[in-house]
Amino acid sequence: MDEMTWPEFAARRDRPVIVPVGSTEQHSRHLPMCVDALLADRLAADLAAAVDGTVMPVMAYGYKSKPLSGGGPLFPGTIDMNGATVVAQMHDVLREIIDDGFTKIVVMNAHFENEAFVVEAIDLVTRETGGAATIVETNWWDPLPQDVVDRVFDGLAFPGWALEHAAVTETSLMLHYAPELVHMDRVVYEEAVEARPYVRYPVRDGDVPAYGGLADPRGSSAERGRIIAEACVAEVARICEREFAG
Amino acid sequence: MDEMTWPEFAARRDRPVIVPVGSTEQHSRHLPMCVDALLADRLAADLAAAVDGTVMPVMAYGYKSKPLSGGGPLFPGTIDMNGATVVAQMHDVLREIIDDGFTKIVVMNAHFENEAFVVEAIDLVTRETGGAATIVETNWWDPLPQDVVDRVFDGLAFPGWALEHAAVTETSLMLHYAPELVHMDRVVYEEAVEARPYVRYPVRDGDVPAYGGLADPRGSSAERGRIIAEACVAEVARICEREFAG
Amino acid sequence: MDEMTWPEFAARRDRPVIVPVGSTEQHSRHLPMCVDALLADRLAADLAAAVDGTVMPVMAYGYKSKPLSGGGPLFPGTIDMNGATVVAQMHDVLREIIDDGFTKIVVMNAHFENEAFVVEAIDLVTRETGGAATIVETNWWDPLPQDVVDRVFDGLAFPGWALEHAAVTETSLMLHYAPELVHMDRVVYEEAVEARPYVRYPVRDGDVPAYGGLADPRGSSAERGRIIAEACVAEVARICEREFAG
Amino acid sequence: MDEMTWPEFAARRDRPVIVPVGSTEQHSRHLPMCVDALLADRLAADLAAAVDGTVMPVMAYGYKSKPLSGGGPLFPGTIDMNGATVVAQMHDVLREIIDDGFTKIVVMNAHFENEAFVVEAIDLVTRETGGAATIVETNWWDPLPQDVVDRVFDGLAFPGWALEHAAVTETSLMLHYAPELVHMDRVVYEEAVEARPYVRYPVRDGDVPAYGGLADPRGSSAERGRIIAEACVAEVARICEREFAG
Amino acid sequence: MDEMTWPEFAARRDRPVIVPVGSTEQHSRHLPMCVDALLADRLAADLAAAVDGTVMPVMAYGYKSKPLSGGGPLFPGTIDMNGATVVAQMHDVLREIIDDGFTKIVVMNAHFENEAFVVEAIDLVTRETGGAATIVETNWWDPLPQDVVDRVFDGLAFPGWALEHAAVTETSLMLHYAPELVHMDRVVYEEAVEARPYVRYPVRDGDVPAYGGLADPRGSSAERGRIIAEACVAEVARICEREFAG
Amino acid sequence: MDEMTWPEFAARRDRPVIVPVGSTEQHSRHLPMCVDALLADRLAADLAAAVDGTVMPVMAYGYKSKPLSGGGPLFPGTIDMNGATVVAQMHDVLREIIDDGFTKIVVMNAHFENEAFVVEAIDLVTRETGGAATIVETNWWDPLPQDVVDRVFDGLAFPGWALEHAAVTETSLMLHYAPELVHMDRVVYEEAVEARPYVRYPVRDGDVPAYGGLADPRGSSAERGRIIAEACVAEVARICEREFAG
Repeated sequence: MDEMTWPEFAARRDRPVIVPVGSTEQHSRHLPMCVDALLADRLAADLAAAVDGTVMPVMAYGYKSKPLSGGGPLFPGTIDMNGATVVAQMHDVLREIIDDGFTKIVVMNAHFENEAFVVEAIDLVTRETGGAATIVETNWWDPLPQDVVDRVFDGLAFPGWALEHAAVTETSLMLHYAPELVHMDRVVYEEAVEARPYVRYPVRDGDVPAYGGLADPRGSSAERGRIIAEACVAEVARICEREFAG
Repeated sequence: MDEMTWPEFAARRDRPVIVPVGSTEQHSRHLPMCVDALLADRLAADLAAAVDGTVMPVMAYGYKSKPLSGGGPLFPGTIDMNGATVVAQMHDVLREIIDDGFTKIVVMNAHFENEAFVVEAIDLVTRETGGAATIVETNWWDPLPQDVVDRVFDGLAFPGWALEHAAVTETSLMLHYAPELVHMDRVVYEEAVEARPYVRYPVRDGDVPAYGGLADPRGSSAERGRIIAEACVAEVARICEREFAG
Repeated sequence: MDEMTWPEFAARRDRPVIVPVGSTEQHSRHLPMCVDALLADRLAADLAAAVDGTVMPVMAYGYKSKPLSGGGPLFPGTIDMNGATVVAQMHDVLREIIDDGFTKIVVMNAHFENEAFVVEAIDLVTRETGGAATIVETNWWDPLPQDVVDRVFDGLAFPGWALEHAAVTETSLMLHYAPELVHMDRVVYEEAVEARPYVRYPVRDGDVPAYGGLADPRGSSAERGRIIAEACVAEVARICEREFAG
Repeated sequence: MDEMTWPEFAARRDRPVIVPVGSTEQHSRHLPMCVDALLADRLAADLAAAVDGTVMPVMAYGYKSKPLSGGGPLFPGTIDMNGATVVAQMHDVLREIIDDGFTKIVVMNAHFENEAFVVEAIDLVTRETGGAATIVETNWWDPLPQDVVDRVFDGLAFPGWALEHAAVTETSLMLHYAPELVHMDRVVYEEAVEARPYVRYPVRDGDVPAYGGLADPRGSSAERGRIIAEACVAEVARICEREFAG
Repeated sequence: MDEMTWPEFAARRDRPVIVPVGSTEQHSRHLPMCVDALLADRLAADLAAAVDGTVMPVMAYGYKSKPLSGGGPLFPGTIDMNGATVVAQMHDVLREIIDDGFTKIVVMNAHFENEAFVVEAIDLVTRETGGAATIVETNWWDPLPQDVVDRVFDGLAFPGWALEHAAVTETSLMLHYAPELVHMDRVVYEEAVEARPYVRYPVRDGDVPAYGGLADPRGSSAERGRIIAEACVAEVARICEREFAG
Repeated sequence: MDEMTWPEFAARRDRPVIVPVGSTEQHSRHLPMCVDALLADRLAADLAAAVDGTVMPVMAYGYKSKPLSGGGPLFPGTIDMNGATVVAQMHDVLREIIDDGFTKIVVMNAHFENEAFVVEAIDLVTRETGGAATIVETNWWDPLPQDVVDRVFDGLAFPGWALEHAAVTETSLMLHYAPELVHMDRVVYEEAVEARPYVRYPVRDGDVPAYGGLADPRGSSAERGRIIAEACVAEVARICEREFAG
């Protein structure tokens, strides 16, 4: 959308608009800080191609990264926005899209911690506008069917989504979309980390292994990334078909 | 704590303080709206007994109930506070406890949707106070070991935590703690609901079955509730031991 | 209401809803911190019985306790929420009740300092909803007729409402509603305190006598408490009749 | 202060600063809308003369006017600021005065409804600055001794402060300070109004008599106004002496 | 307006209302801190005379004074309100005027730094009220035609509006409106200051010359002030005619 | 920076960090909506090369576009964030960069309307952190020397910066940086627009010519764009040298 002129955008009011939201966050030693923003953006672009939709500029900064999902404020370069800011940012953008007359919106999220705040924004804007638009929000990993997960992890062990930070799925997606930003030679993997089943503050050194990852990224491949991307896009396209039918 | 006089409370500064937070939310046709608040409160009381802690008054109103976890704004009696309100409420209470000199705090949460906002409050207060207190936050179900889940669902099918709204675990806990509020004769269970792997707004009639539940509560028992309660308390007590040791 | 199921609550849309709001605040050496929350809750329950109303869960945390009314931030256990938080909490709850279709609401307040912020919330929600509900707000002491005050203080000196913190009226009401939480053997009363006719910050030690009271609680009795409670309920029931008639 | 140059102001850091706060609100048919702002300003000026203090520009807009004190949103010209705005305005001004190195501050309030929000601002700024300044806040009527009230109402009936909106005290003070703005020929007084002992929203026509007053302003005189003004200033000067001594 | 009674104000609903907004800010050694507030107020009064309008009480506190326009937080007496406060204050006042039925509003601004926040308030209130009122906002200097600027600076060098803080235009306007507050004998002018074409924080000593001005006020005269005032009023009156015609 | 891993970023703490901020806003019929974001991003990249700095991800959404600078809410695709959101977004990002230990920050702004809110964020974060970082903020056009403007407009008429929306400078910069996004064949230019010297709300059709521009973009060229870009970068590099020297 950002490469369109305004009359081009205006002409697409009856098509879906896709808002990608990521983060700027450490992703271990072999991936860049833009992983979440880049994946949200690229998956949104592929989805746009599939549903004849329009992609909005990606929100590159997101909610606070948490140790439980492999991040945390102790790594330089992790830019943690407050919850209220994430809500306000998404609220204002959605409100403007709706005021411009669009009624089919997909929020493509690539940073788990964003979700509660992004959904709060969706709830607020839905109340304000009397539900004028249908808004679908999804994390890229949520709609993946089990058989896709099985194919992605063929020959590898799936540690569970909670540990998949800078591990096989994100690394593979990056190898698929932006291999020039992946440094497989710098992959560090020291030991299996077990996620604590609770939250504890303040965050302390050691809550996340010092290199910045939780699970083993070895075995990642562009091919595995392609499988994820295509399945994600296909599933979300199906969701669009169902939800935007009316 | 609310039944103590101030000198009694002041004398317990070196002991853990437990802040229970629940919600006021529809829980199908056989459970009352106070389920989350009551369970947070009772589990906190049992935990206090185990760790010689002090229980703060329960926060009876929580964040918005969502269809994905069996609630939603379309049921009368579901009282949805905005995210900013949930953050502010928890922030102010934690700040005051810390300013009173307490350094060991447990937030016992019984309403899934609260968590991101409760943790935002913990993050904000931790930054403001320079990490003066160690704050543990947990949902009652998160620390349950797999073998406990297996025992609880002995002879029953575990539908996954996502569907456990007004179902076996909550009903059993209520039968354990407050059987007089449970109406097993009104149990409604129509069909297995499959959770959508995404969020869609506006919420529509039918997103949650009309009776207000997701999974089958039949087979619930006070005994199953006792198993959950005891395991939860034992696990959180262990967490307190580990985290409050320093 | 919190012990009802949602269909039970939904069936009572044409009846008054009562929202009790208290505080968690030191109440001298002989009363527990829950005095304001418990009194709001119990008076609301009695009122509900009188007007066939429904009681919402009590808000147990309130606005900052002030020295002029016998509290203040220097006593441990006094939990002071910011004004904005008190407004937000009451706003959100009232808004949800109104959105659920209720039009007759009573806010029963038992903590003087709450009032301006509670009324701000009522004003805001009234503007937002176009006055869809009639909302009555009262402190429990305000509607008491002079002859009731005379009967309550029969044989005792009434120091004025400004000093009635943890003194005769609150102690008597607690003896009426929850005698097991009153420690008459710990009553401390050192000297008559004169309320300053102005506010001064910062609060200093000595602004309130070190034990935490302002006036003499001796002479309190369950009987005096009963007189207050019954008169309060009768008066507010009359107010409901007048205001909810239309 | 606003007529000083900055070096003149800077030279008075060890002297009290007085912040007058009023409102813009209907004051019946015989008084102008500026009554509260003008009285706050003039009393502050007289106090400044008495304590060698410096007067800040008056805040002419205040919190919402309420029917219980004779105002209400139904009268044109009553400008109701939200509570959060009143808090922010006072907070920012106090913070700047304190950051400029002043430590003795008096807030002179002339609009009852302001007080809770003004004091919230004082509390917040006191916490932020570690109590760097001593801040006294008073309504002009609060420190008046009983014998002064008796002299002011000599030959008249005192209806209680709650009804003293646009009545004897305000009218007399206006006759003392700005007689050219008082229209005694337009005085309307229809009947004794009894203050309701509770709050009810929405505000309705008739909550305040249509002319905009509550009690009888007849008998007001510049002489009565002079008595109030001089007593108020003398009392607040004494308060300054006591509180700013350290 | 503040000297009117409410029926007088109510009778003028079809006339323009003028809201003057200034600041409390150092204005070099020869001008008082009230320059912006006083000029906004007086120009509003002259405009009211020209268009049969009504002047609201001046907002005497404004947004943060910046070094680029000759102010800055390092001068005592400069009272910097936060942006959010300036927005809230203007929002609430405009909202109330519109709710009172007025539809023609002029905001007369005399402090450059206010403008973005004042316009944000205008935008917000316009959205909320569906554009019920036409609101014109102007700085007093913006509508001055070039030939007026030439006449004002006849025989003097115009340094550009960016440096006109406490210089010829403000000093001349003050000599026109309030000569008793101008101390021409204290005029300090040390050297030509060149405005930096960027912003840098933190503000440092020396960002503004120590006396508090940017350009040379010598040559100021009441006559030059009269020319500015009359031209400003004439131009804004013309704007009113054009914009309030419908 | 977003293409770096976290250890790469961490190693550059003593180098400048550049935060580009743009907008998503209509830019007439021949330029895409991303003009401001793209220019901020590219100029930041060139500046980074010149000062060995690090570029943060661009903020692609900015403050409300205004008719006076050629935009306005009536064009689809113009995404207007509220002022509070712009402040919060910039505040949070700056705060995190400073908390990561960086002390030399440049904010490169390409959307005029952002500036007041961006600077408010800088002011707030400077106060909070005690001025721990030196923060320079500039619009790309502000530091251009007059002789550069003359060279850019060689053979063309400079209409003043206020009208330079989607006109010669932006079009030329786009031809320099992203010619594939410029549609010179769609250039529309109807008539000279004169900027109103005041603000009027609500915005009306016709406030900006229907095609979305203010001044004539004809004559734009990549060469003129190169001149602007190089001069801007050179000037800001000099500013960095001066301000980050200490």
